[in-house]
Amino acid sequence: MNAPTKFEGLEVGFDVPALPGMDEADIQTPCLILDLDALERNIKKMGDYARAHGMRHRVHGKMHKSVDVAKLQESLGGSCGVCCQKVSEAEVFARGGIRDVLVSNQVRDPAKIDRLARMPLLGARTICCVDDVTNVADLSEAATRHGTQIECLVEIDCGAGRCGVTTTPAVVEIAKAIDAAPGLKFAGLQAYQGAMQHMDSYDDRKAKIALAVAQVKDAVDTLKAEGLDCDIVGGGGTGSYYFESNSGVYNELQCGSYAFMDADYGRILDKEGKRIDQGEWENALFILTSVMSRAKPGKAIVDAGLKAQSVDSGLPVIFGRDDVTYVKCSDEHGVVEDLDNVLKVNDKLRLVPGHCDPTCNVHDWYVGVRGAKVETLWPVSARGKAY
Amino acid sequence: MNAPTKFEGLEVGFDVPALPGMDEADIQTPCLILDLDALERNIKKMGDYARAHGMRHRVHGKMHKSVDVAKLQESLGGSCGVCCQKVSEAEVFARGGIRDVLVSNQVRDPAKIDRLARMPLLGARTICCVDDVTNVADLSEAATRHGTQIECLVEIDCGAGRCGVTTTPAVVEIAKAIDAAPGLKFAGLQAYQGAMQHMDSYDDRKAKIALAVAQVKDAVDTLKAEGLDCDIVGGGGTGSYYFESNSGVYNELQCGSYAFMDADYGRILDKEGKRIDQGEWENALFILTSVMSRAKPGKAIVDAGLKAQSVDSGLPVIFGRDDVTYVKCSDEHGVVEDLDNVLKVNDKLRLVPGHCDPTCNVHDWYVGVRGAKVETLWPVSARGKAY
Repeated sequence: MNAPTKFEGLEVGFDVPALPGMDEADIQTPCLILDLDALERNIKKMGDYARAHGMRHRVHGKMHKSVDVAKLQESLGGSCGVCCQKVSEAEVFARGGIRDVLVSNQVRDPAKIDRLARMPLLGARTICCVDDVTNVADLSEAATRHGTQIECLVEIDCGAGRCGVTTTPAVVEIAKAIDAAPGLKFAGLQAYQGAMQHMDSYDDRKAKIALAVAQVKDAVDTLKAEGLDCDIVGGGGTGSYYFESNSGVYNELQCGSYAFMDADYGRILDKEGKRIDQGEWENALFILTSVMSRAKPGKAIVDAGLKAQSVDSGLPVIFGRDDVTYVKCSDEHGVVEDLDNVLKVNDKLRLVPGHCDPTCNVHDWYVGVRGAKVETLWPVSARGKAY
Repeated sequence: MNAPTKFEGLEVGFDVPALPGMDEADIQTPCLILDLDALERNIKKMGDYARAHGMRHRVHGKMHKSVDVAKLQESLGGSCGVCCQKVSEAEVFARGGIRDVLVSNQVRDPAKIDRLARMPLLGARTICCVDDVTNVADLSEAATRHGTQIECLVEIDCGAGRCGVTTTPAVVEIAKAIDAAPGLKFAGLQAYQGAMQHMDSYDDRKAKIALAVAQVKDAVDTLKAEGLDCDIVGGGGTGSYYFESNSGVYNELQCGSYAFMDADYGRILDKEGKRIDQGEWENALFILTSVMSRAKPGKAIVDAGLKAQSVDSGLPVIFGRDDVTYVKCSDEHGVVEDLDNVLKVNDKLRLVPGHCDPTCNVHDWYVGVRGAKVETLWPVSARGKAY
């Protein structure tokens, strides 16, 4: 309570959960904290891996939505730029100084297409995905109108079951249309196998990726025969990057969750059958929560519920403790089973969220912690940028 | 596309999803829209009900987190004030001009207690809950230090299984401590039966509430015998308010979801076995979403995923359509089964969210719509105020 409570007009406990210099014990909960040492090790490790395998790494900014984290991934991990999923999100990264931004998604609304076409004016190389030949004319018209260039990847659905075409002839048709359209440049392929990333077994994931690689290779080779080279063949996530890196087909990775980790990803197994959060990657992201009621034996109530996280991929896991378990989540409360009654009111716990992406999206700030001290405060710059 | 795109520095599609005067068709998605006619009818109906039954209605601001909606509930529904779950949220309502604010939750962190004790200086009657006698001294010390008064309700756990004490002797012990503490005022009981609100059967809910009413009545009567009157006996939600209103024990309702409705609440049944969203309450809150890909037959991909909603209580339901179904949700995408391929790219759908409270908490704005025109834009004033 001797720590400062205001900084540039921001009040701790109202606008921000903490201030640099504060002890971890004084952080206002619930909030997101980043273990900066672990984060830096994760970022450096993936950067080193990509470099050693001759891959570019376009980090997935949709996961963290933070310009500061993206810049750390550039400086420490050698990333070539970011991908993200929404135009408004892309604008945040471009305005924040990221010079190479891919919207790894379809852009169809006329107003969104117009914004996308203006993004190069912010100084950023601007790339998007296309899965429908009728989209090409709209993108071309907007880029021409603004005197800019939009680079386009044809999106292949290689297992995610969402956007993307599924056959090589469809890829070629769209690629040719892009190539012929003023204001556009055909830049390659987007082929992220999203559905397989969270399969526990390494061999199951490998089998799924083999199918994707064959599908993408056929498209790359056919396009080449048509005189269309793929500058970018992008895909690969935290559960698969080693497959794409060794495929001979992909040249860009798009990993996101490796930097923060979460409980759902942590459960998947590496080649040796070991959980990937026990050696491959470290938990760097936590929801810090406090005990607020001990009115009943065997049960502690904490202050992080559904408004501090997304439970779509399961409940959070209490980090570093096997004596207490987060067993239930309601809007503003978590119920922690504490059979030995070891927790006291105001005790703090670090929760590993079930799913990092939508959890980060409910918070305004990352509190960067090193050695039990708050070192930095980073805004979740693109929080809520869903348009 | 002829609508204005900027207003007081806010850009449509970046800062805000729409502007007043815009056609509904030009709203940028995904975003929250409010059917203002339905909202006003819901608010007026609950206000009339409470008045007719001699109950105060302290609307639950945690659901919408909006000062504008709370003020509409005052002016149109005659509400006596708001309740909410966090001190930072309460400060938003107090700063916004709500004069009677209950934090229907425990406040234990020293910094939060200090903020709570300063809230009366914002002009708001300030009330919180207590479930632990050791909390009383901390609250008293802070109120005395700031020369303010905090009113305290003893929280009874009558089925939610979270905070709150479970026996009358425990209630009396805490009430006496509050009554004796400088800077505090014993104001009554908080007894919200949260766990039962979402049980489908009216009779099942009635049976649960009967237990709660007996428990609360015993506490009220025992306190009275000790010379302690309960100004507030509060509880009651959208799934139970008629029980508390006719109990002869409760005098304040705390309904939230009735104003907006959601898919999970909508499924519970009234006395006649009819869903409560088919007569009792209207869906006033929707996630507006657009089709962004039709690359595969039978399936339309929409732009509202996990970052536009919480799926803790199930997937959203497409409003007013039985030909298409929202079947899958990932971070930024929804998969809509469309077996007859009726949906086209850029078609808009209204989704009824599974659970309104945590869904509202991921959005920055409510777009108020009347007659296919945007009438108003309200900030989700306390969004992210989780401390």
